[in-house]
Amino acid sequence: MSANLLYAQSGGVTSVINASAAGVIQAARAWPDRFGKVFAAHNGIIGALTEQLFDLSFEREQAIADLRHQPGGAFGSCRYDLEDIKTHRPYYERLIRVFSAHDIEYFFYNGGGGSMLTAQRLLQVSAQLGYPLRVIGIPKTIDNDLPETDTSPGFGSAAKYVAVSTREAAFDVASMAGTSTKVFILEVMGRSAGWLAAAGGLAESTPGELPLLLLFAERNFHEPAFLNAVQARINSHGYCVIVASEGLRDDKGSYPWADTGASVAVSLASLVRKRLGYRAHWSVADYLQRSARHIASSTDLDQAYACGSAGVRLAAEGADGLMVTLKRMTDVPYRWETASTALSSVADQECPVPDQYISQDGFGITELARRYLRPLIQGEAFPPFREGIPYYERLQLKRVETQLPAFKME
Amino acid sequence: MSANLLYAQSGGVTSVINASAAGVIQAARAWPDRFGKVFAAHNGIIGALTEQLFDLSFEREQAIADLRHQPGGAFGSCRYDLEDIKTHRPYYERLIRVFSAHDIEYFFYNGGGGSMLTAQRLLQVSAQLGYPLRVIGIPKTIDNDLPETDTSPGFGSAAKYVAVSTREAAFDVASMAGTSTKVFILEVMGRSAGWLAAAGGLAESTPGELPLLLLFAERNFHEPAFLNAVQARINSHGYCVIVASEGLRDDKGSYPWADTGASVAVSLASLVRKRLGYRAHWSVADYLQRSARHIASSTDLDQAYACGSAGVRLAAEGADGLMVTLKRMTDVPYRWETASTALSSVADQECPVPDQYISQDGFGITELARRYLRPLIQGEAFPPFREGIPYYERLQLKRVETQLPAFKME
Repeated sequence: MSANLLYAQSGGVTSVINASAAGVIQAARAWPDRFGKVFAAHNGIIGALTEQLFDLSFEREQAIADLRHQPGGAFGSCRYDLEDIKTHRPYYERLIRVFSAHDIEYFFYNGGGGSMLTAQRLLQVSAQLGYPLRVIGIPKTIDNDLPETDTSPGFGSAAKYVAVSTREAAFDVASMAGTSTKVFILEVMGRSAGWLAAAGGLAESTPGELPLLLLFAERNFHEPAFLNAVQARINSHGYCVIVASEGLRDDKGSYPWADTGASVAVSLASLVRKRLGYRAHWSVADYLQRSARHIASSTDLDQAYACGSAGVRLAAEGADGLMVTLKRMTDVPYRWETASTALSSVADQECPVPDQYISQDGFGITELARRYLRPLIQGEAFPPFREGIPYYERLQLKRVETQLPAFKME
Repeated sequence: MSANLLYAQSGGVTSVINASAAGVIQAARAWPDRFGKVFAAHNGIIGALTEQLFDLSFEREQAIADLRHQPGGAFGSCRYDLEDIKTHRPYYERLIRVFSAHDIEYFFYNGGGGSMLTAQRLLQVSAQLGYPLRVIGIPKTIDNDLPETDTSPGFGSAAKYVAVSTREAAFDVASMAGTSTKVFILEVMGRSAGWLAAAGGLAESTPGELPLLLLFAERNFHEPAFLNAVQARINSHGYCVIVASEGLRDDKGSYPWADTGASVAVSLASLVRKRLGYRAHWSVADYLQRSARHIASSTDLDQAYACGSAGVRLAAEGADGLMVTLKRMTDVPYRWETASTALSSVADQECPVPDQYISQDGFGITELARRYLRPLIQGEAFPPFREGIPYYERLQLKRVETQLPAFKME
């Protein structure tokens, strides 16, 4: 009998992480001689530790296919990273015991850099214990900060949300600027990487169309330069649209906003009002940008699915300890294929926006950045709607009977 | 020769106000024996006062048709209301002089209650001066606070944005709630009317599907009841999704948030953290909710267009001093037609969410509210996309030569 496969989601979810799940599940079902049952852990690694597993063999084919449309993590995710093997050995060993109790020899971990580190450590422990485990990483992060891959599933859709929202809001503020609001600020996610702020630059159909001002996590915030740049845009266009990384820092590299309890957008709006005397509107997109499946990039969606199914193909071919990656063949037209890299080369790495992607003044993106980013937001993949809202097919989520004593987490 | 028609946009714009413009322009073009040229005022009533007019006869038919796709106000809008005739008589007389200089005998004002008051006063002054002016109001407001009409163009699309975003964010937070964020707060527009908070209730496909908590501008904020309601939803579902009117007031009827310089969402998140100890994420949609043409309701879009063209039909038939309204014939299926009402009956009125639409505990909507609201968000009307972002055909916006001395506004 073939061994079973366990799939788990990790960290902040995206609007297309369930498409990766669909890719894994459908590919594994297509290979019955290699894979037995497909299980999913409830709430990521925590479900694996506590033996809270779903048996996906009860799910209809259509329900699995429909995971492509549903935002969030269909099986639950978690913000919980295992520490190093020394500190957390009982946890790693518990995972192996759970796997053993359920004949799980394939573990698919769908997450970012921190999750890949956990995956790598788990592999080490299984080797030490002589347990025949194959571990495959499926990339996921809206932050786009995983190395060794052209992009990470989830980013393209969040980027498209930011580009479209910025474009639409720019047309709104342009029509009000004569007598009312002249400045609009959109705060986007990215604590240490400004990729989503960069995506604001895609709001233009041609460079210079809109008076955009991007604030990157990679650039120190310098108040006079910022105020001058805002004023220059108001002088030329009558208004200014700002897209700011939540991780924006000041000259000293610290977060001046953290103390206010508010946010970068609130602080910038107050600054513009106080120093320049302009009324400023602001928006904080927060979860909306990573759950907006209704405006997902079909390129991103296809990549998310492909990463899932490619991982299964790799495992079927005997691969192990790899994360699936995306490899860009050409920019225009955008051609890509899946590839893979060792978990160790991506574990806990970060990947900021490179200097050559940020314009000289620090407030825009370069042509090189556009060439890189534009393909990632191509194509619309609208979900099915019923009664005016997106329709999500519900899974049965049948629990697997537990075999082991309960595990007490600290 | 037929007299000319002037169209002006007023107040905060919506994602479908340009569809009303298209309705006016296309209908007027179809009636060449009744209407001469169609002009649009640059930045609303200010353009009419300062004689900044666009001659739309230079615009291609396709460009006018494409106004259906473009958010914001294509001709510029303004936040500027003329005061009463006594105070502002020179302004009203100036408008008549501008109309006379350009053979304008039809004035179409696309706005909310305040704009209808201005329109009505303008009509009075024209009568006093013996100038043959016909004034028609076209409704517009995302706040849904115009009386005498089933709804106002702009609201249905903003409501759909709120419903879809709330639904998507709920699926996101549901998957994180086990170990991380349990509370998500979306702040929506509505200073004195909670219609957009009510639209949050449409995020559910069936009542009770999601642990929603709506905070209406119509209900005083009562901290203990709020905290209990949040806790109850976390107990039952593991998480809680809050949609709050920006106009939320406390027990004394004042805005406790105004002082913080932040917002309702920021204050609520801090309250939840402090009093209940839960991590809360929050989003302020601001302009995004009223410019999100990409997720517009096709019902709303059709109504916006129909209001524009119906106004022209009314004027062609000799009507005057009316605002176009929408009349609901049946709920299921939703059948509606355009009608009209005297400007005086809608001028400067407000229309809050009625008691029978708000659930007993004050935190949800009733079945009656659902019957009213659900039809308004039906149908998707995705705009055309190019290179991953919505494509907007640009107008030529050819200026009309001025005939009068400049007008100095105070």
